[in-house]
Amino acid sequence: MNQQYPSVLLEKAVNEFAKLPGIGSKTAMRLVLHLLRQDVQAVESFGQSLITLKHDVKYCSVCHNISDTDVCEICSDMQRDHSTICVVENIQDVMAIENTHQYKGVYHVLGGVISPMDGVGPSDLQIQTLVERVEDGGVREVILALSPTMEGDTTNFYIYRKLENAAARISVIARGVAQNDELQYTDEVTLGRSIVNRVVFTGQM
Amino acid sequence: MNQQYPSVLLEKAVNEFAKLPGIGSKTAMRLVLHLLRQDVQAVESFGQSLITLKHDVKYCSVCHNISDTDVCEICSDMQRDHSTICVVENIQDVMAIENTHQYKGVYHVLGGVISPMDGVGPSDLQIQTLVERVEDGGVREVILALSPTMEGDTTNFYIYRKLENAAARISVIARGVAQNDELQYTDEVTLGRSIVNRVVFTGQM
Repeated sequence: MNQQYPSVLLEKAVNEFAKLPGIGSKTAMRLVLHLLRQDVQAVESFGQSLITLKHDVKYCSVCHNISDTDVCEICSDMQRDHSTICVVENIQDVMAIENTHQYKGVYHVLGGVISPMDGVGPSDLQIQTLVERVEDGGVREVILALSPTMEGDTTNFYIYRKLENAAARISVIARGVAQNDELQYTDEVTLGRSIVNRVVFTGQM
Repeated sequence: MNQQYPSVLLEKAVNEFAKLPGIGSKTAMRLVLHLLRQDVQAVESFGQSLITLKHDVKYCSVCHNISDTDVCEICSDMQRDHSTICVVENIQDVMAIENTHQYKGVYHVLGGVISPMDGVGPSDLQIQTLVERVEDGGVREVILALSPTMEGDTTNFYIYRKLENAAARISVIARGVAQNDELQYTDEVTLGRSIVNRVVFTGQM
């Protein structure tokens, strides 16, 4: 719908929504009209929650995860293993790994991966602060948990070279066939690697 | 992702977004993190545009379309034909018809259609105000342009009964095969009706 809106205020709100990734002008219109049907309080709560977040959001000074405090809950939790650092691309990845309940170490959020195509170089990411964390000592293992893409692999390799001479062990998350994947539809690289990197079967997965 | 968010502010913003229709918590997270990457001004502009819209929005006192003024631009445009009223369900329908550049009359926005399943009765819609507009005189034709659904048809019939004794002619938009539709995939009701309601071919469509 690239036409005249019956109201300038409506047009402005729709255009703001349509700037969001994956939201076209028709969806934007639908969302704005949905909000218009809510009461004033609900709309204010919506708008204000975003403004407040932008104003007051903090990033953990240790791992760079989003946080309400200077050091995030995970980094200030003394129950966790601070000698193991899991390196991830973004906040969602921290949440996804936390959701598995399989990891008790701490994190380091890079804020992206090296991607020359998108103009993202090592200095745009929290790589230097990772190197410093490791050089400060007390770190036994760095787990690289980036996406298995070309950019993720490039970033893995870059970090590996930076930490090569550090005392910490560098590991990378396992790649292989995913739970419930159908073998015949699995790509050759993944399937091949899952055979090469097979593990001893102990009677349970 | 139903898990713990690293920040209460983030969680609140994501939850607000996830209340919108068709937006799940993962999409909400993606949109909120996108907004977080914008500058403060952009986020304030986004949030404020919605709050301002909700506070200052007006509905045209004649046709009930969204408007910045008490009487909307269409209703106050003396170039338009005020003796023809096109009855539509919502604001988007006004915009869609305006976009065709085929209509020079005025509108009446019902604000929905009669739908007992959704608890929407005639008194929830702007039907009485339509009847009053017609009874006030000066209206020669009322075009019913509701969606060709059971609810739309019910509403058409209800309005027809209400206006039966008025002087205005009641018409309904043509139903038939849509431009570029394939005949073999057109439903029987539509195809049958398009044959019954055939029009004289004048050499051009």
